[in-house]
Amino acid sequence: MQNIQKIKNKLKSHQAMLIKSPENIKYFTDFNTDFGYILIKKDDDIFFTDARYFESASKISKINTQLFKGLESLKDFLEDTDEIFIETDKMTVEEFQNLQKIFPDKKISKQNNISVLIKNLRRVKNNEEKNNIFTAQKIAERALEKTLNEIKVGITEKELAAKLEYNMSMLGSEKPSFETIVLFNQNTSVPHGVPSDNRLLENDIILIDFGAVYNGYHSDMTRTILWGDKTDKVKKMYELVLKVQQKCIEKAKVGVKVSDLYDLAVAEFKDKAIYFTHSLGHGVGLEIHESPNLSNKSNQVLEVGDIITIEPGLYFENEFGIRIEDMIYIGKNESENLTNFPK
Amino acid sequence: MQNIQKIKNKLKSHQAMLIKSPENIKYFTDFNTDFGYILIKKDDDIFFTDARYFESASKISKINTQLFKGLESLKDFLEDTDEIFIETDKMTVEEFQNLQKIFPDKKISKQNNISVLIKNLRRVKNNEEKNNIFTAQKIAERALEKTLNEIKVGITEKELAAKLEYNMSMLGSEKPSFETIVLFNQNTSVPHGVPSDNRLLENDIILIDFGAVYNGYHSDMTRTILWGDKTDKVKKMYELVLKVQQKCIEKAKVGVKVSDLYDLAVAEFKDKAIYFTHSLGHGVGLEIHESPNLSNKSNQVLEVGDIITIEPGLYFENEFGIRIEDMIYIGKNESENLTNFPK
Repeated sequence: MQNIQKIKNKLKSHQAMLIKSPENIKYFTDFNTDFGYILIKKDDDIFFTDARYFESASKISKINTQLFKGLESLKDFLEDTDEIFIETDKMTVEEFQNLQKIFPDKKISKQNNISVLIKNLRRVKNNEEKNNIFTAQKIAERALEKTLNEIKVGITEKELAAKLEYNMSMLGSEKPSFETIVLFNQNTSVPHGVPSDNRLLENDIILIDFGAVYNGYHSDMTRTILWGDKTDKVKKMYELVLKVQQKCIEKAKVGVKVSDLYDLAVAEFKDKAIYFTHSLGHGVGLEIHESPNLSNKSNQVLEVGDIITIEPGLYFENEFGIRIEDMIYIGKNESENLTNFPK
Repeated sequence: MQNIQKIKNKLKSHQAMLIKSPENIKYFTDFNTDFGYILIKKDDDIFFTDARYFESASKISKINTQLFKGLESLKDFLEDTDEIFIETDKMTVEEFQNLQKIFPDKKISKQNNISVLIKNLRRVKNNEEKNNIFTAQKIAERALEKTLNEIKVGITEKELAAKLEYNMSMLGSEKPSFETIVLFNQNTSVPHGVPSDNRLLENDIILIDFGAVYNGYHSDMTRTILWGDKTDKVKKMYELVLKVQQKCIEKAKVGVKVSDLYDLAVAEFKDKAIYFTHSLGHGVGLEIHESPNLSNKSNQVLEVGDIITIEPGLYFENEFGIRIEDMIYIGKNESENLTNFPK
């Protein structure tokens, strides 16, 4: 069944849904834009966008496209509607007030059901979506390989991030999947570190966390690179994180509780778990962070079609950090690692 | 007077303002983050951010920083507050609902006065802000010069945009000011065109609209480059746009109505004005589009401290387009062109 039909089945007559977030617009129309509104009723749907985008939207959108000239444009379509559901986590208070002004007789429901509904639909990736993410990942891997061949002692974290993003663009990435993280040596000890003017020295540990975007779909991978001689502690911790990651990947199958995966990692890290400060991973798709979130507080269970990251890490303050991250597709019979870059 | 003091003067006792947009947080704290809350009362202020950013925020923020552990963290500071003003154009309906749950006894005002108030403060750039924007502009100019020296026939619009963004990063830009626009030949006829795989041919017109970011502050410049022989129409239209731009720049002084500037451009373009489809320019600062907006519908008047773009353009469908854009600082006695790249 088409995704938009699944939405329609949730609606009674006289009810409508109003969608305005770019990622949900892309999901239903296949059109990439920063401005537009989709309206969905039990038996009809329509996409509005303004003059800047109307021509290209008309060609690409899977939903019948009309010209937006202010919220009044929505009136005709909503004539027989009493209740409008909105994305409460995307719509601002001001937009909500404007809607109320334009539609004083309609109930604009603040129940956050649309966003959750669409989030659950978007969790399940079909083949086309999986291929988009895999293509983004291949671009990211080729760019990383090229970048690592080009780097020299003395380059800064910021410069290395810029080179990597440039190589991704030249290989077909639409934009970086998120702000590229490149950290050297001691800086790797900060789980949410930001690239600085810190220069690469001989034998520095290098941590790179980044991704590409292809046809709107994101990839995500982390590698921690040890070169030259390393202390026993560094080597031991790298092996430990790698072992934990592999165990979690092997266990990531349909029906497994994500909190069990998280707990497995923590159990393996034992007393080092205090240095594992973030979730074990997250869904990836039209956004870099999607459902499910692999934390110990989650009740979610892995489903067929999930594409998740598995990214355990250990961080030792003022010393160093190790994180290794792959993207895993949860298939019906078996899971598939979409990441093929060596560790 | 300090900007935060100007805000405090607007508040009565028992009133508070809650600020959450990253650009307004940067404005008041000087700290760059995607997550935090500033609370301002008549005689006090505080900045909350979470564990990821707390350490660096404590060092940089101009406002006393505390650790955020959920909206409950705000309770102590708001004990004697009856009414909370919010940024209605930034806060989502869901966040608003959460605030109402946490503070059932307080009035959470939906009047959009904070956003407008801060917008008007941010319009007026002080010397430090002006220097940041000028530095961003210098980075952009050096990057464009370097990029133009490197390009060859056969490069695509996307590749040229990637090269330019890379060169800006290497010269110290934090990120592109907005999605870099690079268009060749016929594609220049689309005012809001997006870089494609279109390849540069000998003598193609090149339109580049882009900017750098330095210390959070944006720059913005457009150049249309004609090389090789051009038709009389192209040459004439280029000269016309250039003349109109220069006239508007000369007229851009304190006290001038922005709609007069717009009307001046349209009058010069005469019958060609139907091909001038966007505003004449906009304020630039912590965001790429700030107040004032130079349209014919605006009542705004240029003020000392405004930094605005002046970017007239003419677009001939399926033929070509010309746009030329500089950034102008409106000083007390005279205005100053912050753009020094040849036209």
